[in-house]
Amino acid sequence: MLYVVGLGLGNEKDVSVRGLEAIRRCAHVYLEHYTSVLGVDCEALEAFYGCRVTLADREFVEERVDGMLHQAREADVAFLVVGDPFGATTHTDLLLRAREEQVDYEIVHNASIINAVGCCGLQLYNFGMCVSMVFFTDTWKPDSFYDKLAVNRRNGMHTLVLLDIKVKEPNMEQLARGRKVYEPARFMTVNVALEQMMEVERTRGEALYGTDTFVVGLARVGQPSQMIKYGPISELARHEFGAPLHSLIIPAPDHTLHESERDMLRSFR
Amino acid sequence: MLYVVGLGLGNEKDVSVRGLEAIRRCAHVYLEHYTSVLGVDCEALEAFYGCRVTLADREFVEERVDGMLHQAREADVAFLVVGDPFGATTHTDLLLRAREEQVDYEIVHNASIINAVGCCGLQLYNFGMCVSMVFFTDTWKPDSFYDKLAVNRRNGMHTLVLLDIKVKEPNMEQLARGRKVYEPARFMTVNVALEQMMEVERTRGEALYGTDTFVVGLARVGQPSQMIKYGPISELARHEFGAPLHSLIIPAPDHTLHESERDMLRSFR
Repeated sequence: MLYVVGLGLGNEKDVSVRGLEAIRRCAHVYLEHYTSVLGVDCEALEAFYGCRVTLADREFVEERVDGMLHQAREADVAFLVVGDPFGATTHTDLLLRAREEQVDYEIVHNASIINAVGCCGLQLYNFGMCVSMVFFTDTWKPDSFYDKLAVNRRNGMHTLVLLDIKVKEPNMEQLARGRKVYEPARFMTVNVALEQMMEVERTRGEALYGTDTFVVGLARVGQPSQMIKYGPISELARHEFGAPLHSLIIPAPDHTLHESERDMLRSFR
Repeated sequence: MLYVVGLGLGNEKDVSVRGLEAIRRCAHVYLEHYTSVLGVDCEALEAFYGCRVTLADREFVEERVDGMLHQAREADVAFLVVGDPFGATTHTDLLLRAREEQVDYEIVHNASIINAVGCCGLQLYNFGMCVSMVFFTDTWKPDSFYDKLAVNRRNGMHTLVLLDIKVKEPNMEQLARGRKVYEPARFMTVNVALEQMMEVERTRGEALYGTDTFVVGLARVGQPSQMIKYGPISELARHEFGAPLHSLIIPAPDHTLHESERDMLRSFR
C-alpha cells in the first residue's frame, strides 16, 4: 500500500494522527522535497516518527517513482508531502501512475497553503485561480500571472500568489562541464515578488495595480512565528518578513470586500 | 488561551498531533456543529480525546461566544471546527471578537473541503470562487450562483459547489406557536443540487450548462468510503452517492483541461 500523507505547514506535529499511524507502519518513508518545505528539517521528522526518511528531490520523483511503486506492491510505503498531497501537479501524476500499475494507495489530507491563507481574514470561497511567480532572469520574465490576476480582480476575486522555490537546482555552468553541482536553496520573498509585479506592470501598463494597491504579505503560515502584514505595495516591498516560506495575496478591489474581511485585514495593518 | 482546532474531514483521527495535544490540555472543549459534520459522532471524539465535548450549534455561536471567550481568559479552551477553521465566515467573526477582547488564540489548521477536492484530479490552483447551493423552497430559489459559475467557466476555472446543510433548524410552524422544535438534519445530495441547477438553467436560459455537461460528484471526501464520479449531469443526477456530505464540481470547459486532469477524471468515469 502507498500512503500519500500531507504533513501540513509547520512542524513534525502537524501531521494527523491517522497520518502518523500510517507512517509508523511503513517499511519505506520518502519526503517530497522540492515543491515546498516544512519549518523543521528531516531529522526532526525522523526523531518523531522513529524511522528513516529518504529525501525525494525532483530527480527522484521523475526517475525513481517506478521503484517506489514496486516497493509499495510488496510493503507499506509512505510518500510525505508538505501541505496537502494535491498542492502540486506532480503528485497527481504519481497517483495516475499508481492507478495504471494497480498499486493501492490511500490519501491522508492536511492543510495546504491554499486553505490556510484564510488566516488573514479573506474568505476562502472568494479566491479566484492561484498564480505563480517565478524568479525572473535577464532573459526570462514570464508575465502570464498578469492576465489571470486581471480576470480575478475584474470579477471581485482574491488572488493567492505562490512564490518560487528552488531546492537542489543544478548549476548550469558546472553541468555544461559535466559536473553536477547544486545551487544553494532559494525561496522567493514577498519583497522580490512585489518588485517583479511592479516591473511587469510597467511593461504591460494596464494599471491593474500600482504602488498604492493594498496587498497581504504572509510568512511561515501555520508556524508559531507566522507573520501577516496588510499594506500598500510600496510599504510591503520594503518590509522584512524573515525566514521562508512567504506568500502574497492580492485582494479583490476594496469596495467588493465584506465587512468582516475589511475588519480582519485592518488588524494586520 | 483559545485554541481553534480544525478536525479535518473524516473521523476522530484526522486531527493533527498538535491539535490533539492542545485539546487534551483544555478545560472546556466545544464542537462547532452547524456548518459541517464529521463522519463520526461526538461520542467518538469524546472517547478519543478523553474529555467532554459540548456541541455548539448556531444559537450557541451567535449568543454564547462571549461566555466562551471569558472562559478562555482564565483557562485553555478548544473550539473545534470540522475541516479547517477558516472554512466558514462565522469563525472569522469569532477571531475578530477574540482580538477585540484581547483573548489570545492559536489556530490549528487542517484539511478543508476546499483543498481536499484536489483528490478528483482537478488542479487546485485552477479553481475560481466557490458557490453555495441552498435548498430551494416554493418561494425562494436564489440563483446568484449562476453568475459566479458563468465568470468561472468563461475564464477557464473550475467551480466547487458547496451544498446546503441544515442542522438543528427550528420548525417555523411550531416556533410561531411559541414552541422550539427542531427539524431533522438535512444534507443536500448531489442529485438535488443538479436538479436545482437545471431548474435555474431553464429560467436563465443562457446555456451555461446542460444535461450533457460533465461534472464531478463527490461524497464523503477524506473518508474511507469516499466516492468520486465523473459524468454528464443527466447521469449523475440519478446516481446514488450514499451518506453525506456531498460536494459537486463543475470543471472548466473540457478543452481548457490539462492532460493530467483529463486522465484523472476519466478514471472516475
